[in-house]
Amino acid sequence: MDTIKQYIEKNKNRFITELIDLLKIPSISADPAFSQDVLNTADSIMKALKEAGCDKVELCETPGYPIIYGEKIIDPNLPTVLVYGHYDVQPADPLDLWDAPPFEPVIKKTELHPDGAIFARGACDDKGQMYMHVKALEYMTSEGNLPCNVKFMIEGEEEVGSESLAWFVPKNVEKLANDVILISDTGMIANDIPSITTGLRGLSYVEVEVTGPNRDLHSGLYGGAVANPINILSKMIASLHDENNHITIPGFYDKVENLSQEERNEMAKAPFSLESYKNALDIDDVYGEEGYTTNERNSIRPTLDVNGIWGGYTGEGAKTVIASKAYAKISMRLVPNQDWEEITTLFKSHFESIAPDSVKVKVTPHHGGQGYVTPIDSIGYQAASKAYQETFGVTPIPQRSGGSIPIVALFEKELKSKTILMGFGLNSDAIHSPNEHFGIWNYLKGIETIPYFYKYFSELHK
Amino acid sequence: MDTIKQYIEKNKNRFITELIDLLKIPSISADPAFSQDVLNTADSIMKALKEAGCDKVELCETPGYPIIYGEKIIDPNLPTVLVYGHYDVQPADPLDLWDAPPFEPVIKKTELHPDGAIFARGACDDKGQMYMHVKALEYMTSEGNLPCNVKFMIEGEEEVGSESLAWFVPKNVEKLANDVILISDTGMIANDIPSITTGLRGLSYVEVEVTGPNRDLHSGLYGGAVANPINILSKMIASLHDENNHITIPGFYDKVENLSQEERNEMAKAPFSLESYKNALDIDDVYGEEGYTTNERNSIRPTLDVNGIWGGYTGEGAKTVIASKAYAKISMRLVPNQDWEEITTLFKSHFESIAPDSVKVKVTPHHGGQGYVTPIDSIGYQAASKAYQETFGVTPIPQRSGGSIPIVALFEKELKSKTILMGFGLNSDAIHSPNEHFGIWNYLKGIETIPYFYKYFSELHK
Repeated sequence: MDTIKQYIEKNKNRFITELIDLLKIPSISADPAFSQDVLNTADSIMKALKEAGCDKVELCETPGYPIIYGEKIIDPNLPTVLVYGHYDVQPADPLDLWDAPPFEPVIKKTELHPDGAIFARGACDDKGQMYMHVKALEYMTSEGNLPCNVKFMIEGEEEVGSESLAWFVPKNVEKLANDVILISDTGMIANDIPSITTGLRGLSYVEVEVTGPNRDLHSGLYGGAVANPINILSKMIASLHDENNHITIPGFYDKVENLSQEERNEMAKAPFSLESYKNALDIDDVYGEEGYTTNERNSIRPTLDVNGIWGGYTGEGAKTVIASKAYAKISMRLVPNQDWEEITTLFKSHFESIAPDSVKVKVTPHHGGQGYVTPIDSIGYQAASKAYQETFGVTPIPQRSGGSIPIVALFEKELKSKTILMGFGLNSDAIHSPNEHFGIWNYLKGIETIPYFYKYFSELHK
Repeated sequence: MDTIKQYIEKNKNRFITELIDLLKIPSISADPAFSQDVLNTADSIMKALKEAGCDKVELCETPGYPIIYGEKIIDPNLPTVLVYGHYDVQPADPLDLWDAPPFEPVIKKTELHPDGAIFARGACDDKGQMYMHVKALEYMTSEGNLPCNVKFMIEGEEEVGSESLAWFVPKNVEKLANDVILISDTGMIANDIPSITTGLRGLSYVEVEVTGPNRDLHSGLYGGAVANPINILSKMIASLHDENNHITIPGFYDKVENLSQEERNEMAKAPFSLESYKNALDIDDVYGEEGYTTNERNSIRPTLDVNGIWGGYTGEGAKTVIASKAYAKISMRLVPNQDWEEITTLFKSHFESIAPDSVKVKVTPHHGGQGYVTPIDSIGYQAASKAYQETFGVTPIPQRSGGSIPIVALFEKELKSKTILMGFGLNSDAIHSPNEHFGIWNYLKGIETIPYFYKYFSELHK
């Protein structure tokens, strides 16, 4: 692996250009208007895997968007790494908050990225991080030092719940057989403080609809006499947290894993400045569940957030109307042991039960997934840790993430292997937000670190 | 006036066609995109007033949309009726709930309108009701039986707060001098139960913005640790009513007029079926302030309704985002003695005070107006009552309306005259809602009744 630095130096401009080309395709899986773009991105991934040295690349049809499978099997007796990533991206709105159009990538320097960062939807999540693996494979195949077998499984529905992947994996257990799963779809603490994600939160995402009168009404003639669905929805949402910001859904916390004080003390050692955190977000104060620190609130504790709300007149000026309907999209981040389907059911019954007789309520589950915790004594984790030590010069910190990759729990269940989450993005990279970006230093550092994982994993596996 | 029935019979098709032509112009004052249409409507009104027999018609420029003034002075010694109406309309959205496009009027029969109703935005509020007066004038001038002087003042900003009218009236007190003001911009109980509106609620309309983090955030990475502006806005809105649905803004009820039990008993005599009311709106229960009936809640009691709310992701599918901002449009209907500017100030200070430190709140007042009560012993009211008796065969019921025509209080203050609210629409005509309509029977009945008001007012004024 000692030639990796030179290989990157020689090819880095091409690596950047190739990623930029990929980022130009608006592969928004949530919006059917972009379906052809999602399909075109799948084609690009196939091409990239072939060029990187895969012996076999397949477009696997599913009930939704295709899954791209690629493999290079050098010896059936050697261990196999399965790389997972996704080629779809989040919707880009609100578009007016982007400094440059989300699908016309630009490179700009930032305080945290003095070498420049690529700004585009999907730059970090996950096209950039997924493509590091393609380029790391290219290095290993072209230099002839791939130490084990490799399989790729790149899907197009991660941002909408990975339903087709959940359908695909159990049907292809043999094809996907592996010794470890490697994913770069998380972040690290800072460029000088690498970390490996050891936990992910689960997710339950629902949409609610509150219907009052059968048509929009004049707020003067009816105001005060009929239930206003927006007022009622606000009241119902407000009641989902108590005065200590605990979630009030009965049974919600029943299976929540309570960390020991020792574990919490260990977590608290990770470098964190509340002042910088608040400054970066331009907020005067943080806000969350009583009794927990900021880093605990967004990693080891479950949460409930409204992701979108709408109803009534939202145009210019004033309209004195009582809307017939009000809507919200609500998601809950779950911690290990909370079952997302059970939580979805608890939410639905509770939300329906708190509606007054004067409205009708409909709860539609969108998608969800289980949380995940990975042990740090596995050879996968040890290999990753050694890889970071090689390229960053320091031991990475194990860290729980607040995000969700629901499919990871399914991988363990179906494929019986552990997942290693080697993320190279930063929290400030604005994934899911306007002006998403990915540091060029981080992109190249990822390409440099990944081959060492293969090396150490193969060595430790013997 | 005994020729009015024949005149209507002879001309009713033209009356309907002329109104339909007026309804085809989308004069939405709230949305700048329609400004040319608003101006075109003003031109149509000028033309209509000239054709109806006004001697002088003027387009009066204002800081906003023009006010159309017309007059026919037959004898300075005779009394003068000032007719007020508006040529602007409410926005038409949500467009997908209209059975036919809002500015392509169609005539359809309904249960309450067996002779057919004209369906279009503005059909009842207020183009149809305003145009009854134009056609009544046409009858009186063409038959030579106008018994007094008449002035018209038709504005184009009623649906956005009548700011230009409030600017115009004090500057034109002499021009607008009159003995009574006549307005048809309210409703009546039913086609066989005519009523005259004796009270209007005031209005305070504000827009609120809640800002959390300085950008949209990933709900996994930040969820639970920072204030979500949608959750906070919901909590703040929910807190504006207590468990008895009283409004919690300190000082809000201080000046509210409390009606005596006797007055409330009198009100309760108006025919009302809670069952029909619920059936018409397809609701299982009504909802409102404890201790008051439905008819009290929407007339003699002040209210607070959210007219629109929006924030975060509202598109197809799911996006796991914590929005940077959330917004709501909130209006309060006020009762006589509550000062709208004082209430706006109370709202603003209270709403700002209940925001947690973790968000910033901005409250922007939109517009407002005072409530109004008219005495039933005035000659204006008596003339109107006799007019209804003549054409409906029954004595109309005096009734407080929940709606607002903020400018009425200003008329009394500046022009020192009382306003008579002769409305011919029904509550079920869906003003401000999709499928707004106005019964053809009601339209023609209005044209028939108005000349009798002129007759009896002139007689009683002697």
